[in-house]
Amino acid sequence: MKKFQLAFMWVLALLLGLSAAAAAEKPKYVFLFIGDGMSIPQRMMAEEFNMRLNGEGLAINSFPYQVMTTTRSANSFITDSAASGTAIACGEKTDNGTIGMDSSKTRNLVSVAEVARDAGKKVGIITSVTINHATPAAFYGHNPSRGNGYELGLDLIKSNFDFFGGGGVDGHGDKEPDIYNLAAEAGYTVLHDPQELLKLEPGCGKVLAVQKDGALPYAIDDPDGFRDADYLRKAIELLDGDEGFFIMTEGGKIDWMCHANDAGTTMREVIDLDNAVKVACQFAEKHPDETLIVVTGDHETGGLTLGFAGTGYNSYIERLQYQKCSQDVFSGKLREVADDYSAVEKAITEWFGLKFDAPDDDPMELTGSEKEEIRAAYDRSGEDHKEISRVTHTVVKIFDNKAGLGWTSGAHTALPVNTSAKGVGAEAFKGMIDNTDISKKLKELVVK
Amino acid sequence: MKKFQLAFMWVLALLLGLSAAAAAEKPKYVFLFIGDGMSIPQRMMAEEFNMRLNGEGLAINSFPYQVMTTTRSANSFITDSAASGTAIACGEKTDNGTIGMDSSKTRNLVSVAEVARDAGKKVGIITSVTINHATPAAFYGHNPSRGNGYELGLDLIKSNFDFFGGGGVDGHGDKEPDIYNLAAEAGYTVLHDPQELLKLEPGCGKVLAVQKDGALPYAIDDPDGFRDADYLRKAIELLDGDEGFFIMTEGGKIDWMCHANDAGTTMREVIDLDNAVKVACQFAEKHPDETLIVVTGDHETGGLTLGFAGTGYNSYIERLQYQKCSQDVFSGKLREVADDYSAVEKAITEWFGLKFDAPDDDPMELTGSEKEEIRAAYDRSGEDHKEISRVTHTVVKIFDNKAGLGWTSGAHTALPVNTSAKGVGAEAFKGMIDNTDISKKLKELVVK
Repeated sequence: MKKFQLAFMWVLALLLGLSAAAAAEKPKYVFLFIGDGMSIPQRMMAEEFNMRLNGEGLAINSFPYQVMTTTRSANSFITDSAASGTAIACGEKTDNGTIGMDSSKTRNLVSVAEVARDAGKKVGIITSVTINHATPAAFYGHNPSRGNGYELGLDLIKSNFDFFGGGGVDGHGDKEPDIYNLAAEAGYTVLHDPQELLKLEPGCGKVLAVQKDGALPYAIDDPDGFRDADYLRKAIELLDGDEGFFIMTEGGKIDWMCHANDAGTTMREVIDLDNAVKVACQFAEKHPDETLIVVTGDHETGGLTLGFAGTGYNSYIERLQYQKCSQDVFSGKLREVADDYSAVEKAITEWFGLKFDAPDDDPMELTGSEKEEIRAAYDRSGEDHKEISRVTHTVVKIFDNKAGLGWTSGAHTALPVNTSAKGVGAEAFKGMIDNTDISKKLKELVVK
Repeated sequence: MKKFQLAFMWVLALLLGLSAAAAAEKPKYVFLFIGDGMSIPQRMMAEEFNMRLNGEGLAINSFPYQVMTTTRSANSFITDSAASGTAIACGEKTDNGTIGMDSSKTRNLVSVAEVARDAGKKVGIITSVTINHATPAAFYGHNPSRGNGYELGLDLIKSNFDFFGGGGVDGHGDKEPDIYNLAAEAGYTVLHDPQELLKLEPGCGKVLAVQKDGALPYAIDDPDGFRDADYLRKAIELLDGDEGFFIMTEGGKIDWMCHANDAGTTMREVIDLDNAVKVACQFAEKHPDETLIVVTGDHETGGLTLGFAGTGYNSYIERLQYQKCSQDVFSGKLREVADDYSAVEKAITEWFGLKFDAPDDDPMELTGSEKEEIRAAYDRSGEDHKEISRVTHTVVKIFDNKAGLGWTSGAHTALPVNTSAKGVGAEAFKGMIDNTDISKKLKELVVK
């Protein structure tokens, strides 16, 4: 063999090797997780809490690819969930409030879930809030307004997706016929009891397994409930097959408790979503060469800060463990005893660990001015204490501050979010991306 | 040639090709930029401001590698600049307050600048604050306390680094002999006038070109001043040579104005650092195969939020353009007219664009309660208005909120920062890293 032939072969071999490496494999199974209102502070808060209490961080923070992701909408630096859901699902910016349509509200966009469906993959949509809430709806719905629940319910049925699980169809009975009846007519097995869902077996056909109404309870109030992770485990079982699947799972209530500036409940919702991600990770361990997992948030909510003026350089995130219920549930508990202020104090100690009378070195002891603040909120709670939630808000604010956490807003903020990826195709998530890039990348990856 | 020989050759060729690709090139020129107190919100605020006013973002946000970076110190979830500077410079966690030593305060650590020096590279250190402030000192100093300015000045001289530029040596005359005299004795050309620095030529030897005392003025107050970018331009000229260089440039006063919760001044400090980064980028364009640029922050300060309760989903970052001086300078201006409240009002309108009497649709018009708040601060400014800075703080808070920005702390927070990289070796910056990883990666890259 002549020398130049040999050299040619070396070059050829090198080129072939490189091109083989460049032609990326595509995943058979694609998991997308969205934490609504989950940006970097929400993730770090839960990470630090878990590290302090259990010595291990979140699964989502251990992914090899982590990429900062900007979130602005077509008409606002600060996005809402409809516009960001549409960006993540469809890859195009739209105005706040709009679901799966462009900002002129005249053109339907195509979501990655629809692309996956048309490519023959099974499709599942899971959320802890109502199944036609903005974020999940962006994967199948096309409507100028996120508020049109009934119409988004019609779109849900029309999508022909294989699995829906979680909170109910909002506004299902606002018009006739009821969305659940229409879904059954369209061939969906409609279930409102998770125990019934567990009995289903692969090959059962399309499933709408959602609560009759409303969102799932908060994780902190529902430790033994049927959660996102449980819906996902069942969806995987039902959708696995030759063509693979695309499953979007949303932790929808992180956002709600960030709006309410309740760190303890928020943190447990993040961990609840992480538990669902772990289900996907376990699946990926069995299918390492066929699975992609992507986790993102749609925006930050609340301006959560891992630090607070009153605590300076110290932080006490482990104190969130003393909170035993969400602020919604706590207001209910206060309402039961509202006539008796000493019982209110007792409830505050029981559910938040804040002490009205404790040794001076007890960090959970309330200061004089904090006690006054709570009492003043109680005094302003009105006739029959109808506004007892004033006490709740005061207690939660003091509690969060004692944990070294602050909030600046009851709305969303423009802080970028973190997108995490691992598995087949994950290397596409690098640099700094926009939320529309998530859809663009996934649309390439869900087709063969 | 037999078939198995052929197959063997193919495999060998492939392996060789891959290993050649894996053996990454090392940069001759390494630039490290640190924004003190510059985390994601600070960068995004400046990005959005620039986009709205000039239609282009920051250079640092356009880098191809962007990686989230955790910042905790050895003894605190919320780091200070000494511990984070040490982590970035030396690659090891230490306690808050400690410079270039381990957390037992018994062992000196080795910084990437020292490694670069020992590898034959020229080394430059530039900062807008005092040259022996915590962050720059971490690259040459070894002291249990960041407060020991004089001793850190001795370490500066001992480092034998080639170029120091920016703010003065803090405490240079606290003991005898004066640090500047010692530096001159040790062979440094000591200059306090930038015009003298500009006259120096390559081959001039070691340079200590710093203000006699204190930090550089704020960028907003010093638009035509000699800034980080100018020091860097000169350092590049003086240090370029066969072995290349390592230059660390710090935007040190971002942090100061975050502590003071002054968004407009903070924003312009970020842009000032970005201007210095652009100098490195221009150099890299001439030396694309030999240059690495890394930009990071040491921690977040202030809990800056890109959103605010009072402005909800709207943001008005462009309004920061109406601020014409830092809050420090503004307090000085108020002091001059403090006896006359109408002159105080006039100054507020002149320097912050806030209007006491304007058409109702003027967004910069102060509301009734905002006017009351300012007046109340004035009334509390004490005898001879010694505490006129109360008015400043009130004005800046109102002004930032009108821009749709909020703050939660006067201290640092634990929000991760963003590290950006481009050029030779930049691909090492991916996934999610810790601030100690920056030093570890750079130490590998600055040696041959």
